[in-house]
This record gives sequence, structure tokens and C-alpha cells, in this order.
Amino acid sequence: NPGLAVSFGFIRKVFVFDCRGQKNDTIEKVLEGGNVSLEEFIATVRKEFTITTEEKFVLTTTAREAVNDQIFEELKNGNTLYLLNSVDQVLPVATRERIEFLPHYDTLVKSGMYEYYASQGQKSLPYAFAELIDNSLSATAYNKGVRSIDIRLMFDESQGKHAVVVIDNGSGMTSKQLNNWAVYRLSKFLRKDKEFESDHAGYVRPPPVSRSLNSDISYFGVGGKQAVFYIGHSTRMISKPPESVDVHELILCKDDFEKREKNNEAIYSGYIRNRKPGDSFHITSDDERFLHGIIMEESGKDSFTTVVITGVLQDHIHYLKNHFHLWTRELAHVYHYYVHGPNGNNLNATVKTGFVQNIDIQITMFEKGKVPKIVNLKEIKDDMQTLYISSSVDSFEFRTRVEDEGVVEGIIRYHPFLYDKETYPEDPCAVTKAPDVDDEEDCVIINKEARGKRPIFECFWNGRLIPYTTVEDFDWCAPPKKRGIVPLECYNRISGVLFTNDRFQVSTNKLTFMDLELRLKDKSTIFTRILNAQEQRIKIPKEFTQWLKECHEKWDKQIKFSGFKGIITRSDV
Amino acid sequence: NPGLAVSFGFIRKVFVFDCRGQKNDTIEKVLEGGNVSLEEFIATVRKEFTITTEEKFVLTTTAREAVNDQIFEELKNGNTLYLLNSVDQVLPVATRERIEFLPHYDTLVKSGMYEYYASQGQKSLPYAFAELIDNSLSATAYNKGVRSIDIRLMFDESQGKHAVVVIDNGSGMTSKQLNNWAVYRLSKFLRKDKEFESDHAGYVRPPPVSRSLNSDISYFGVGGKQAVFYIGHSTRMISKPPESVDVHELILCKDDFEKREKNNEAIYSGYIRNRKPGDSFHITSDDERFLHGIIMEESGKDSFTTVVITGVLQDHIHYLKNHFHLWTRELAHVYHYYVHGPNGNNLNATVKTGFVQNIDIQITMFEKGKVPKIVNLKEIKDDMQTLYISSSVDSFEFRTRVEDEGVVEGIIRYHPFLYDKETYPEDPCAVTKAPDVDDEEDCVIINKEARGKRPIFECFWNGRLIPYTTVEDFDWCAPPKKRGIVPLECYNRISGVLFTNDRFQVSTNKLTFMDLELRLKDKSTIFTRILNAQEQRIKIPKEFTQWLKECHEKWDKQIKFSGFKGIITRSDV
Ligand SMILES: Nc1ncnc2c1ncn2[C@@H]1O[C@H](COP(=O)(O)OP(=O)(O)OP(=O)(O)O)[C@@H](O)[C@H]1O
Ligand SMILES: Nc1ncnc2c1ncn2[C@@H]1O[C@H](COP(=O)(O)OP(=O)(O)OP(=O)(O)O)[C@@H](O)[C@H]1O
Ligand SMILES: [Mg+2]
Ligand SMILES: [Mg+2]
Repeated sequence: NPGLAVSFGFIRKVFVFDCRGQKNDTIEKVLEGGNVSLEEFIATVRKEFTITTEEKFVLTTTAREAVNDQIFEELKNGNTLYLLNSVDQVLPVATRERIEFLPHYDTLVKSGMYEYYASQGQKSLPYAFAELIDNSLSATAYNKGVRSIDIRLMFDESQGKHAVVVIDNGSGMTSKQLNNWAVYRLSKFLRKDKEFESDHAGYVRPPPVSRSLNSDISYFGVGGKQAVFYIGHSTRMISKPPESVDVHELILCKDDFEKREKNNEAIYSGYIRNRKPGDSFHITSDDERFLHGIIMEESGKDSFTTVVITGVLQDHIHYLKNHFHLWTRELAHVYHYYVHGPNGNNLNATVKTGFVQNIDIQITMFEKGKVPKIVNLKEIKDDMQTLYISSSVDSFEFRTRVEDEGVVEGIIRYHPFLYDKETYPEDPCAVTKAPDVDDEEDCVIINKEARGKRPIFECFWNGRLIPYTTVEDFDWCAPPKKRGIVPLECYNRISGVLFTNDRFQVSTNKLTFMDLELRLKDKSTIFTRILNAQEQRIKIPKEFTQWLKECHEKWDKQIKFSGFKGIITRSDV
Repeated sequence: NPGLAVSFGFIRKVFVFDCRGQKNDTIEKVLEGGNVSLEEFIATVRKEFTITTEEKFVLTTTAREAVNDQIFEELKNGNTLYLLNSVDQVLPVATRERIEFLPHYDTLVKSGMYEYYASQGQKSLPYAFAELIDNSLSATAYNKGVRSIDIRLMFDESQGKHAVVVIDNGSGMTSKQLNNWAVYRLSKFLRKDKEFESDHAGYVRPPPVSRSLNSDISYFGVGGKQAVFYIGHSTRMISKPPESVDVHELILCKDDFEKREKNNEAIYSGYIRNRKPGDSFHITSDDERFLHGIIMEESGKDSFTTVVITGVLQDHIHYLKNHFHLWTRELAHVYHYYVHGPNGNNLNATVKTGFVQNIDIQITMFEKGKVPKIVNLKEIKDDMQTLYISSSVDSFEFRTRVEDEGVVEGIIRYHPFLYDKETYPEDPCAVTKAPDVDDEEDCVIINKEARGKRPIFECFWNGRLIPYTTVEDFDWCAPPKKRGIVPLECYNRISGVLFTNDRFQVSTNKLTFMDLELRLKDKSTIFTRILNAQEQRIKIPKEFTQWLKECHEKWDKQIKFSGFKGIITRSDV
């Protein structure tokens, strides 16, 4: 290592390479000293490299700028300098220049910004909320009683600035876990949550469950950070693990990052506040008045996590206020099977299934002078899955496994033609083109083609919807090219759902699957029908066609009055 | 700040909070010492906090574990400890625990992995290559002569392990710039490239140019890192700015990150090697034999950047070898207008336009015992843009501006019906469903609907294709609901291209636009036809319909022999 380290000033240490000759045996030394001037520094250099006063040399940066007073002033700890015969002299021997390349804090602050992009005119904010719900679902997975996820929109100006708050009664975080929360990309697969336990057991996958509703939705170590910085500028995480006497609090804030950069401080350093529950002594800003109440609620709780997002973007506030039904309904769609259980929400069901709904995802919007708007996701009756389930008359279940333990369960549902119309549900909130003004001549035929050009399958990953990925069809459930035993229009009367486990990869924003379709459409993938929980041995194309035929014959009811012939009175009934 | 810092051992300094009473005025001190035992440490604590030997206390971690020898052993520099009356005593006053939350190195190493996801069965590797070409285009933007981007696939085992090399003759990087290259998310908008120049000018947007072909394609500060780690495990960046005597070299390598983590070393620290051009003395591994040749080439060059990616994933090697035409053709598509100029590649053009093609993007694949495969993107004749341009007979140009300086240029091209078929081009490499074996009855009608259900517009951002975003149509070029003056099928004979500047946002992987369609379909967006470089004042729906009508009348040639009538000899010709 042909470098000589010269330490000067209080914190600055620079590395000097003597590149004047062919020497490559210079040693590294550390010199302690006070704040020195360039002259003093050069004197030290002369001494260290035993350069006589007659000998000429130049001292340059690695960019080959001769060091003058200004450059010397700006030298940072760890910088490298050259000792040369001339500024543009060739390096006889290579030098090693120490560098640092900490990711810029935009890694955190902007992580969500280019990820939750709008697609097809959809607003993507609900999917940022979904990341926080994911985390709360993971955290409450082992709750004994109700799993409560409480989203509060604090839009009452008299209580402080606008804020988004998510409170769950999950397992909370120790201060070490809270610290880890802030580490971008530190996934559960890498994490060691206990600082002082060498024999820490790694991540254990939960056992397989129906529909992969395993609540194990944390994956990349980015979701929470992406979400909070997408929603606002600053986040206060407050958490208490069970049996802990202390509550832990951490603020991650865009302004703090900027301040630290400006002051040349360590960018990724901060403080966790450890305090007793209910202690809001530190909340002094009027902007956060509402926090006193929220912190007061801590006292009764064994464990919890509270995410408080402030500096909420104006656009978001506008959207959240004005499209309350739209985005809560979208969340009801994403978590349909968590909220309603593996069989989903059947509005027509008379007998309730054995499943106990212990997940309460509640959203409350507080506005000044108004009665708060409250909705529990399980009360929402017009999310698309509820509509699919409630309008279907029969279902066809199947299953497949792909390599590396990939499991997919599937359901196809039949929406019959009834009397005069298709019952395949339309999205009541779909953004439709505004009809042209001079359009009155046209007659709008609703549901003309039932599913129409839409893909059959919506896709769920570990039980939650991955909203931007759909699967068109599979060979065995697509309309056949040759006339078959079932009328073609029946193929348009089906909707479907796929449930995968985490052996299928999704993108970090959980908006798309990466290769679901590719893997499922592989020739080697074998689908099996599941009937009464039994795998059927007959090949699926035959099973499916048979099922579809039965659905058609049993459920489609099309009455055509082809011409009035007179009244016949039936005496036989 | 109610903490007392006790420094012990060589590097460890822990913070101790005395939480026994109501005191909150403890001072912070630094004690220097050698490697101490827990006993000695406790003695120091007693002394510092003036605790008599009679007084009882416990020393715990912030997780409330009593400090024993093992925990003491594992204490890290910066950890916080409590001095308590009992382990589960409530904190009288909040404590501030210092934490660090450096992003995990997967931020870099896995950045591309979940971004270049396959979509619609497409392989996304070409888009990782595109990121490197983007960088080379930016770097060569101000070249006087040819802008050369040379991609070499070193797949000759006798020359070392498989590697992907990208060499450009652009402006290169100083060691500071090379350092900045490695900083994740440090975009050009934030960057200060000169370490020692306080009056550094910030980023300056290039002036507007036709089709936004401004070569200013760097944007987020992530592309290069995402790309290289998507392609392989290790990357050697070699670069030399003009007039520099030194070449700078930096290795970013997954294994190094792992090693540093294991050894508790600074994760984001490394070395830049500064050396004379042509000096490959440091390349000692047989795996990288091919580097000697590549480094030798440096000598003749004023400036260059060479990206050498090793540890290339086996899957990628397989794909690159076996689908050489497919992925080079895809790159020809992405950079069509850079390579061929604003008018694109018209295979039928007899007169060449004034545009000088000075961008040479050349791809060479070296395999053992084979003649290298070489292709220059400008020679590729079957990329979709070339097919669109060459099969069109007329075009309709337009333009729009949206707020915040957003500029969009557009071209619509007409592909006529000629004699017996549509000329709207099919993608010769499209992945089509394998025809069923028992399919011989069906007759396949090619080009039945010309464009069919496909969207009209492909979209380019700063001149390069954003591959996963298309725009279906605009009101004024969509088939009208009412019968108009043009036959409906003519609306299916058009293809289109949109060129936006960087005021439209794309996702960090440059695969999708974020809100292009939304902004363009805003009611306030006004499109104007451009004819002979003049903005037309007539409203665009009328202009367009008129143009389409003319195209139809002039170019569509459908000859129907509706019945033989006899032969007439024309004497007038
Ligand atoms: N509400 C919560 N309760 C308890 N722990 C939480 C909560 N939210 C986050 N955490 C912890 O913080 C970690 C980081 O959360 P974050 O959402 O950023 O990433 P992730 O969930 O690990 O992965 P993903 O990128 O898939 O969301 C989680 O793994 C979890 O350990
Ligand atoms: N071939 C090259 N020649 C010169 N400089 C380069 C080259 N490649 C990268 N750089 C420098 O490194 C920086 C980082 O590159 P990187 O591709 O990671 O991000 P970016 O181009 O800034 O942004 P984006 O995320 O849009 O790609 C570039 O901005 C540029 O300054
Ligand atoms: Mg998460
Ligand atoms: Mg780039």
C-alpha cells in the first residue's frame, strides 16, 4: 500500500502518495495535529517524505489540481493527494484512492415516488396504504383476539396539520427492530433483530394455509419506507412490544436528511426516543396537537405500533377526501380474503361459514366540524371480489404446483345469463369515457359480452391482491377454436382468481408479479381440479368443459318470446 | 441531553443513561481506556455516576436485558445502556438512543432484480443493456466525431470467464465522478462533480431539439447500478476524462459487500485505482485474461469509459447467445431515432436526409472457435420502427404542450390496403400462441384487421423508447361513433409515435411512463397539426379526418373483379 497518511486538523486525515519516482514502498503514518495551514502541512510533508528544501515538487489532488489555500481549506477527511514532479506527470505506479459511496438519502425519500405510478388512469395512493396494512397484518398475525388495524385521517385543522395515522395492536417493535425498520432493503431474510443474541434463529416460513392467507406479507424491507414517503414528508413510528415497559419512537423526516447533509453530519444517524407509555411531554408543536390524544391511548395497550405521517401532500389530501368510497373500496378488494376469509364475501349466503373474521381494518376520516366518516373494510359490499362472488352461481376450483415449492390455488366462477341479461358484474366505479355530446343516436348495450375482452383472473400473492397483474386465461379454460359442446358465450361468463404463495416473485412495490404467467404457461405445469377438497384425476380440460356445460344447462335462463300464439291453460299443475 | 458517554476498549463507546431517579441533568463525558472487563466497566460507571458500593443498581440494554459478560462482549460502538433500580422499572424521563440505519447493500445489488421484470412474456434483459447505452449516449453527447458505443460479449472461455463489456468514447469520468457513479440515487440534479470548486454550476437542461433527441437520458442516478447488478455479480468501471493523464478504475462487487459486512467494515467504502493508460499490471486473475487486450486499447484514446461486468448470470448468457437477433433488434427499436435520426429509417427512401448518422452502437459476440457475430444497430432492418416507417405512405405530424414545459411531438403513419392485403406491419418476432395440432380446419387470416386491437402509439422519452407504455388513441384519431366521411377500417391502418421531453415522468427503470396518458387526455390539452414545419390553425379533428380521407383515396388500392365483361383495347396509350 504505497500511501502515507498525514492526519491534520481535528478530524481531517489525508492520504499522500509520493509519485515522483519509481518508489512503491512508502509507508502509511498517522500524524496528530491541530488546525494547520497549508504551509505547515507542506512542511510536514517535506519532513515525512524527507524532501530537501532544494527539491522541487507539486502537491495535487487526484484530479491533478495543484493544492492551493482554497483547495486545502476544502480538503475532507479521507481525501487523497499526490506528490508529483509535475502536474501532468504519468503515474509510475497505480495509486489507491479511498472513497465512500453511501446511497443518497433520496433512496429512502423518493423510493416510492417512481414506484406507485399511475397505471391506466388508476390512482395509486391506495397501494401505498396497502403497504402499511401489509405490515400491520404481519404484525398481528399471532394475535390471540381481534386483529385491529385502525387508519385515521386527521384532517381536522383544529387538531393540527393534516396527518395520516395507522395504529395496529400487533406485536410492536423493540428499539432494535424499530432501528431495523429504518434500514432500507433489510428484509426479514437478512435481519437479526436481537442485538445481543448470537444464536438468533433466522426467518422461518409459515406453514401452508388455504389461499396462502399466511399474513406473511413483508418481503423486501422497503414497503413501509416507500409508503410513508410517498404519502408525506415526515413519519413518526411509535411502537411497543408486549411486556415491554418502554415505548420506542423514531422520526424519519425529509428535512432532517437535508439538514444533516448541509451540516456534513452522518446522513443515516438518528435517535430513538425511549419513554414510558402515554408520555407526550415531547410533543410541543401545535401542528401535532392530535398526538397527545393518540399517545394517551397507549396506556391500555400491551403492544402496538402507530405510524404517524405528517407533511401529507396536498394532492393526496384532496384525493383521500373526495374519493373516500373509491379508495376504501379498493382496499377492500386488495384484502378481500383476509377480511372475509378463504371463501370471500357472499352477500347471498344464508349460512355463514365457520371462518371467524378477526381482522378489523377500519378507516376513519376526521374533518373539522363534521361527523367522522367511518368504514370497516368488511362492511364494504361493492368491491369487485364481493360482486364476483355474490353474482356467481357455481365455482370450479383447481390447483397447481410449479418448481421450487410454488403453489397456486384457483377458482373460476360462473355468472349466468339470466332472462334478459348477463350477470357478469360490471365495475360500478370504472372510469368510462364520457359519452360524446352528439351521441344520442347510439344505443348503449350493457354487458353485451359479459367479461368482454377482460382477462379472466385476478391474482393474489400471500392472500393479498397484486393489482396490476392479471392472467388472461389458460389453454383449458379459453374458448376452443373448434366448436365444442358448450356455446362460446359461456366462456365469457366466467371470472377467476389465482392465489399464489411467496414462491412467485412480485416487484418491490407489490403492484405486479414478475413471472407468474410465464411460469404457469410452461408446458410442464399441470393443473388439477379440486372437488370437495379432493384432487381429481381426470384431465382438467375435460373436467372444465364438463363443468361449464353443466353450468350452462343448469343456470343460463334465456326466455325468448318468439311470437304470441295464444293462451293455453295448464290443468296438470 | 441526559446521557453519559463512557468510552472503553479501542473503538467502543457506549452511552449510559442513569434512569434511577428523576434526574435529567446527567452530563456526557468521554472516557478513554484500553480493553476493559465488565467489572472494570462497572467500576468506571460507579465512579462516573458517583454510586456508592452500598447502592444497588442494574445495568441493562435498552431491551432491558441485564448486561452480563456475553452481552458486554457483544456491545458495539454507539450502543446505549441504562442504569436502573430494577430491570422493569418505568423510565422517569425519556432517553435518546443513538442509532444508525444505513441502507442495506441489497439496495445496490438487488436494485435491478425486481425492476426489470418480465411483462407479457417479454424478456427484460435488453432493457438493462439499454441503461448502459443511455449512459454512453449521455457521455458522448458532445463528441466531435463518431459517437462509438461498443458492446462486447466475451463468451470465449479461452479468454476468461464470461463477461459483458460496454466501451464508449465519451467524456469519461474523473475519479470524483467515478465515485459519484457508485452513489445510489445521486442524480445529476443533486451532483457536485468537482470536489474542490465551490462555485460549481448545477445541471443545465439542454436546449429543445427535434424529437427530444437530446442524449440527456440520465435521470435518477440508479440506472447503471441496477443494470450491472441485474446482468452480473461484479463490475469494473474504467474511465478516463479528456486530457487526463490518469485512468480511474473502480470495482463494485457483491462479494466485497458481503465480506465487508462479515468483517464489520464500512459497507460503502472502497478504492479507486488511479493508473496510467494501458497498465494492466493489476489484472492477475486468469478469469479476466481478456482485460489485458481491452486495457491495451486505452493507449490511443483521449477519453473513454469501459464497463466490465463479470459473474454474468447463466440464464442471461443462455438468452444472449440464443436470441442474439431478438435482443439486438429490440435495442435497435429502443434507439431507433438516435441511430437513424429524427426521420427514422426508411428502407424505401431514395434520397437520404441531411442527417448525419454519427452514433455507432455496435454489438459483438465472441465465442470460442467461432467467427464473432457483429451487428451495428443501424444495419438492423426489421425492428418495428423501421417496419412502420418503411411500410407507410404518408404521415400526419402534430404537437402539443402541457403545463410545466411538457412537449410532445407526434407522428401518425398510414399503412394502406394494397390490392389484396393490409400493409400495417406484423411483428415478425411476436410470440404467437403455438397453433393447436388439431387446428387444420381453421383458416388463418393474416392482417385481417391491420392494427387490430393494438394501441396506436409507441412512446419515446428524450428520444428513447419506453417499452411498456403505449397510448391507445386520442379522441381525434379514434374511430368515430357515428359514420363519418372515412371508412372505419382506415382508422385501423394507422400507427403512431409520441416523442416527449423529460417533463414527463418515467419510472426509475425507464420501462413505463407515469402519467403520460393522464396528462395528454386532460381536457385542456390542445393538439396542433404540424404541416411543413408550420402549426396549422384548423382544429385537429378536422385536419386529421381530412388527412385520413386523402390517404384512403390516394393510397388504398382494392381491385375487385366483380364479373368479366370482355376485353377492351385502349388505343389512347
Ligand atoms: N406495524 C408494524 N408492526 C410491527 N413491525 C413492523 C410494522 N411495520 C413494519 N414493521 C417492521 O419493520 C420492517 C420493515 O417494514 P417495511 O414495510 O419497510 O419492509 P418489509 O415489510 O420488511 O418488506 P416489504 O418491502 O415487503 O414491505 C418489517 O419487516 C417489520 O419487521
Ligand atoms: N459511460 C459513461 N460515461 C461517463 N459517465 C458515466 C457513464 N456511465 C455513467 N456515468 C456517470 O455516472 C452517473 C450514474 O449513472 P447511472 O446510470 O447509475 O445513473 P444516471 O444515469 O445518473 O441516472 P439513471 O437512473 O436515469 O440511469 C451518470 O449520471 C454519469 O454521470
Ligand atoms: Mg412491509
Ligand atoms: Mg443512467
